Amino acid sequence: MAICHPVFFKIMDKKISDNTINRLTLYHCILSDFLSSGESTITSVQIANLLKIDDSQVRKDISLLKNSGKSRVGYIIADLKKAIEGTLGFSHPKNAFIVGAGNLGLALAKYDNFLNYGLNVLALFDNDTLKVGATINKKEVYHISKLPELAQEMGVQMVLLTVPRSAAQKTADFLVNSNIKYIWNFSPSVLNVPEGVEIWNENLMGNFLHFSYKISN
Amino acid sequence: MAICHPVFFKIMDKKISDNTINRLTLYHCILSDFLSSGESTITSVQIANLLKIDDSQVRKDISLLKNSGKSRVGYIIADLKKAIEGTLGFSHPKNAFIVGAGNLGLALAKYDNFLNYGLNVLALFDNDTLKVGATINKKEVYHISKLPELAQEMGVQMVLLTVPRSAAQKTADFLVNSNIKYIWNFSPSVLNVPEGVEIWNENLMGNFLHFSYKISN
Repeated sequence: MAICHPVFFKIMDKKISDNTINRLTLYHCILSDFLSSGESTITSVQIANLLKIDDSQVRKDISLLKNSGKSRVGYIIADLKKAIEGTLGFSHPKNAFIVGAGNLGLALAKYDNFLNYGLNVLALFDNDTLKVGATINKKEVYHISKLPELAQEMGVQMVLLTVPRSAAQKTADFLVNSNIKYIWNFSPSVLNVPEGVEIWNENLMGNFLHFSYKISN
Repeated sequence: MAICHPVFFKIMDKKISDNTINRLTLYHCILSDFLSSGESTITSVQIANLLKIDDSQVRKDISLLKNSGKSRVGYIIADLKKAIEGTLGFSHPKNAFIVGAGNLGLALAKYDNFLNYGLNVLALFDNDTLKVGATINKKEVYHISKLPELAQEMGVQMVLLTVPRSAAQKTADFLVNSNIKYIWNFSPSVLNVPEGVEIWNENLMGNFLHFSYKISN
C-alpha cells in the first residue's frame, strides 16, 4: 500500500491509525470466513492466533468500535462484523469504473468482495475494440471514448486504473478531463494529476519489499 | 497492505519505518519513469510534487541512503535509483511460484516489474487441466500436483496465492505440506498456517477503505 497520503479515521471522536484500520479489515475478513463456516461466536484469542498478533491488541482495537457484540463467550460474530462495517463507514456504496480490461482489470471485475465493502464496479473500459461488448461478471466492457458520457450519466467519479505502465499517464490525463476525481492506480507508475484529483497508489512492490525483508533476515 | 506483522528495515544501522519504505519504493517508481523519458537528474521538489508530499520529507528519506547521487542540480537519477535498490536489498532475486492461474494469477505472471525488485516468478500452478501446459510470459502452467516436486527441484519456498477464497485454506495446507515457507496471499481470506510459515496478506479492501475515507470526508 502506498502511504503517500497518511490518513486517519475518526472513530467515536478518536483518531485511529492506518495500522488499526488494516487490522480491523483483517478481522472483518476472518469474521466473514467464520460466519460462512456456520460459527456464531469468536474470541479475541482465535482472531489473534490467525493473525499471529497479541490478543490484547485485538481487544484494544475492538474496544474502539460501537456495539462490538461482546458476550460471555467472546464476540457475537454477526454483531462484531456489523460494528466494523458501521464504524469504518463502508455502508455507503461508491460507484466506480475499471479502466483497462486486461487480466488485472478482469480479475478486479470478478472480485465480488468489493461490493461487501461498498465499492460498486459498474463497467469496464478499454481501447481495444476486440474487448468492447464483452460482459464480465454482469459488467459490460465499453470503448474508452464512451467514458466521459457514461461517467456523467451514472454519476461515477472513481476509477480503478489497470492499464499498462506505458499508457498510465495519458489515460490519467483523459480521466481528469472526463471529470474523474478519484483514481485507484494499479499501474506501476506514479501519475501526475492536477489539484482536486486524488490518487491512491496500489504499491505492490512496496508490499513485496516488506515481505521480502522477512525472508532475507 | 495488511500490516499484521509490522516490520522494520535496518538501514545504515538505523531502523526505518514502513511508511518510509513505501515512499522509497514510490521514489524508485518515479525514477524509473524519468529514466525512460531520457532524464538524467531530478530534484526533491519534482518528486515531492508528484506525490503531493513535502520536499523536506523527500530529502529526509533520501538522506538515509548510501551514495544517494546528490549533485549541484539535484540527484543523478541512475545513482539514486541504485542507492534505493541497494539499501532496500532487492538485488538478491527470490524465486517464486504463482498458485492459481485465474485472471489475477495471469496478471501477476505478466507483471515484469517484479523482476526489477528481485522477485522471479518461475512457473504457475492450477488444478484445472485445461490450463495446464499453457505458457504465460515464458512461464509454464503446471498441474498443482507437480508443485512439491518442482518446488524442491527449483529451490522455491515462496508462493503468490491467487486462488478463490473458497479454495484458499485447503491450498495453503497443501503448500505447507509441500515445504513452502512464504505465502503472499492475494485471496480475500485469512489463512491458518503453522509456526515457521510466513503469510503476507495483500489486503486490497484495507487499501480501498483508506481511499474511500478520503472520498467521504
